[in-house]
Amino acid sequence: MQFSSKLIENAVGEISKLPGIGQKTALRLVMHLLKAPEEQSESLSKAIVKMRHEIQFCKKCHHISDEETCNICNSPRRDGTIICLVEESQDVMAVENTAQYFGHYHVLGGVISPMEGIGPSMLKIDSLVKRITESIATDQPIKEVILALSPTMEGDTTAFYLTKKLKAFEHLKITTIARGIPVGGELEYADEVTLGRSIQARVSFAD
Amino acid sequence: MQFSSKLIENAVGEISKLPGIGQKTALRLVMHLLKAPEEQSESLSKAIVKMRHEIQFCKKCHHISDEETCNICNSPRRDGTIICLVEESQDVMAVENTAQYFGHYHVLGGVISPMEGIGPSMLKIDSLVKRITESIATDQPIKEVILALSPTMEGDTTAFYLTKKLKAFEHLKITTIARGIPVGGELEYADEVTLGRSIQARVSFAD
Repeated sequence: MQFSSKLIENAVGEISKLPGIGQKTALRLVMHLLKAPEEQSESLSKAIVKMRHEIQFCKKCHHISDEETCNICNSPRRDGTIICLVEESQDVMAVENTAQYFGHYHVLGGVISPMEGIGPSMLKIDSLVKRITESIATDQPIKEVILALSPTMEGDTTAFYLTKKLKAFEHLKITTIARGIPVGGELEYADEVTLGRSIQARVSFAD
Repeated sequence: MQFSSKLIENAVGEISKLPGIGQKTALRLVMHLLKAPEEQSESLSKAIVKMRHEIQFCKKCHHISDEETCNICNSPRRDGTIICLVEESQDVMAVENTAQYFGHYHVLGGVISPMEGIGPSMLKIDSLVKRITESIATDQPIKEVILALSPTMEGDTTAFYLTKKLKAFEHLKITTIARGIPVGGELEYADEVTLGRSIQARVSFAD
């Protein structure tokens, strides 16, 4: 594609490095920025650089954070005896948006995937074990770990690995999020595995 | 949506101001930037700010340019006696990408639209008239203006306005791009107006 301007070409090139954004979309964004006041481009750029430069990962749960420990771990209102185990920081945000969970989190940073060369040692599993071990001596021992991983081959493998690893803690309850028909989903379009699991794991209607 | 980080929230806020990018997409882009090396965020930001700050508009044709006059107007290889009239700089790029046109351009900066309060005086029409007038005295008088506007109400209105305005130049040929069935388009899905026009404006098969 010809841009007849090196400046435009550079900007389009950089923007189209982002996932899901091709040259045409990048050009549309550039043209939008050109029409908008210069301040918009400046505040956009500043927000990106500042975010990338200053972001930290919570020392306790590895969730993205503005400080050393995230505001979920810091909050006195949250129940530190339950840990919801997720793959990525986005998953923490997704669970937070449900407003149905008030415990702590632990971000693994991925799932075990031999295909992509990701082994257990590359995930934050040791730090989870350490976290549980250290909590035993305190007045708030971790008593439940909720596995909230994706229902993929890799997610299931990771879940099994963790279950084995955490078996040593006899007091610890290991749960997983319910699989079933999504709310608003139609039965006839559900796949057999999901439908089968949702029948096996049926709940009392009053719940 | 909860982000549990002011830095993320700001970045997502700024990115989702762009057209066609919602909060979820913005968050995906932010997460991508977090995983990528810090240099990527920096070069992205720099490219945007530099582009917005240094971009100019060609004094002759109003196309975006790195210098006072764009490289199309500057090129000795291009035919300055033909002008292709377009709405926006994107349209110049689109025509350039066809590699079928070797004349100059004139970017109107929009089309006449009473609904949006855009009158002829807000477009670069006077500068087009001036350009044609001034060219008469030179050894390369402008002899053709190709109207390459969108086939919308506004585009057609603008085309009629321009035709009337340019009638004063008796030597000037005013043409418009051909309307017809797109290459690869199927006849049965074409709308009646397009199909009708493509029959009226049929061309010899040898062409």
